[in-house]
Parts: sequence; structure tokens; C-alpha cells
Amino acid sequence: MDITKVEPLARSKWLNLFRIDFRLEGRAERSWSLATRNAEPKCVRGDFAAPDVVIIVPFHTGLNRLVLIREFRAALAGDQYGFPAGLVDEGESVVEAVRRELREETGMALTRVVRQSPPIYSSAGMTDESSALVYVECEGEPADAEPHEGEIIEVVFVSPEEAGRLCADPALKFDAKAWIVASHFAATGRV
Amino acid sequence: MDITKVEPLARSKWLNLFRIDFRLEGRAERSWSLATRNAEPKCVRGDFAAPDVVIIVPFHTGLNRLVLIREFRAALAGDQYGFPAGLVDEGESVVEAVRRELREETGMALTRVVRQSPPIYSSAGMTDESSALVYVECEGEPADAEPHEGEIIEVVFVSPEEAGRLCADPALKFDAKAWIVASHFAATGRV
Repeated sequence: MDITKVEPLARSKWLNLFRIDFRLEGRAERSWSLATRNAEPKCVRGDFAAPDVVIIVPFHTGLNRLVLIREFRAALAGDQYGFPAGLVDEGESVVEAVRRELREETGMALTRVVRQSPPIYSSAGMTDESSALVYVECEGEPADAEPHEGEIIEVVFVSPEEAGRLCADPALKFDAKAWIVASHFAATGRV
Repeated sequence: MDITKVEPLARSKWLNLFRIDFRLEGRAERSWSLATRNAEPKCVRGDFAAPDVVIIVPFHTGLNRLVLIREFRAALAGDQYGFPAGLVDEGESVVEAVRRELREETGMALTRVVRQSPPIYSSAGMTDESSALVYVECEGEPADAEPHEGEIIEVVFVSPEEAGRLCADPALKFDAKAWIVASHFAATGRV
């Protein structure tokens, strides 16, 4: 892909909108708009190695339950069911970010990393945002959570039956990744 | 949520960036930036009923394979593995959009809708974009695909073993939802 023009359309603290013009070999020039969390889109920097976000799939081994959070989301004008997640800080590894965000958002302590995805993309038609999805085991109590100011988070422990009931309720808003994992957990009892 | 200000930061053909100021009962006013595919964010319209996008999880019953697509994505400066997907047209039902997009992007014909998610959210920290995830059975040949001008799509049929190999390859870029479904398919042989 040969990028011929990069135009920032708007910048805000956490999110920027760009238009790029590009040409693929043997094809006409095209334009595309994309949102990015970075100062410059990844396609311009040419660097896709580091995920923007960690998304944690926590299984509480003591309670034998999958851990979801119910979190206020301004874009949804209400609460969303999802997984604990957050931006990877400068200089932080993926596992360090997982340990920190799990503790802050749920009070749980990471006891084992089960598996980790490569950077995977939220919605590549509109953004270059990528996440590492990290399946972990954890222990601890929601009372130990330390959410940031403004974060409104409730920890929800679910059995396969409870996961199935939540996923089937059209009145609830669900993060796409959490809905898929929780649906599989409901169907198979496995994360 | 009481929205006190709505500021469009930028508009482009397919994607807009807004900042909203809002107040929750008993809390200080806050600001949030979000990208939206709509002329006005859903939180301002107060309407979350219709998904922006259909995402199709197609199982080819004749070949006994999960169907992925490999598609050029400008935001990723290259190809992404994902599912056939597209915007729901004005006046179109979710199942009509699924039938149309499946045909256009893969050449396959929908034979059965297996199950359908409620609208689920791509990345609610940055966008109000929602998708209906629709698991279907299909038949047909990739040769019958009719992609739109500028769409560059290859159909990929995968067994559980092939899905596992693709998901484990760090050189490939994957849509998050497709990675999760394909990983489960690899582990359990079930979609």
C-alpha cells in the first residue's frame, strides 16, 4: 500500500480521526477514514507490533466462575457487560498491564496466564485499534478493586447458566468479544 | 446520563468524531470522545435498537468447513482474516443484509440461520458501533462472489486444525471476533 496523503481531521485527548489517500499496485487511488488512539495511524507508522489495549478473560478458580464486569460507558448512555480491559501504559508489558488492570478494575489477583492472543483488531473498517486478549486464572475479592476516578464498575461472577441467561437478554448491552466468550462458556462450560 | 453538550469534531463520509459533555447523578461533569458511523451518536439519539453492521459466521455444510475471508484493510495496511460483514442498508432487515453480504463477499448462499446475537459493541470506549453476529449455514462457490469496487476479498475454508494454525500465526492480522470464534472452533470442533 502506497500512502499518498495523510490528513488529520480531528484530534482529541484519547481518539483521533484521519483520512488517508492510498494506492494499491495496479489500482486507482482511494481514500479511507479511520479512528486511532495513536498520534499517527499505525498504517502510516508501519508498526503494528504492540497492542493498544489488553482485554482480560478472568476465570476465578476459587469460585469456579467466569468474571465479567458491568461498566458505565458514555458512548452507550448506560452500562455494558464486558471484560476488564485497559490501555497498555508506556513501557509496560502486556502481562504487567493485565495484572494492573485486573487488580484496579476487579480487585482480583492474577495467579496464572493461560493463553494470550496476538494483537487482534476491534473493527478494522473504522479503526486500527488492536487488543491482546489474555485468558487468566485469578483469586481475590471485588472489595479490593481500585477503579480510577470516573470509572463505575461492578464485578459479576457467572456460571455457564448465568452467562447464557445474560447473553440471551436483549435488554442488556454487551461487548462483542465478551458476548462471544460468554456464549461459548454457556454452551460448553469452558472458557 | 444527562448530556449537556454535543460537539461534532469532524465528519467524513463513513465516520464521524464527536465530543460529548455529560453528567451522572451525584457526579461531576465529564467529557468523552467517540467515533460513530451515524450522523448523530446513538447516546444523543437515545436509540440503540438497530445494529450498524451484520457480521456473518458461515459454516459450509457441504464442505464441513468454517468460512473466513481474507480482506484488504487500509487501516491495517494489508490483509485481515475475518468474517464476511457489512453495513445494514436503509430499510433492510438483519437477515436480508446477511443474505446479501454473504453472497456479495463470498458467493455463498444462506441455507439456514442458526442463531443471532443482539446488537453487540465493537469497542465501547471509543465508538458506539454495534453489530449483529449471525451464525449461518451456507452452500455455494467462491467463484460466484460479487465484491464491490475496491473490495479485495479471498474466501478461506478452514477445518478446526487449519483454524488453529491461522490463529496461532503471529504474522497474520485477525479481526477480534473472528479470532475468538476460530480459536473455539479449533479447540472444540464447534462454531
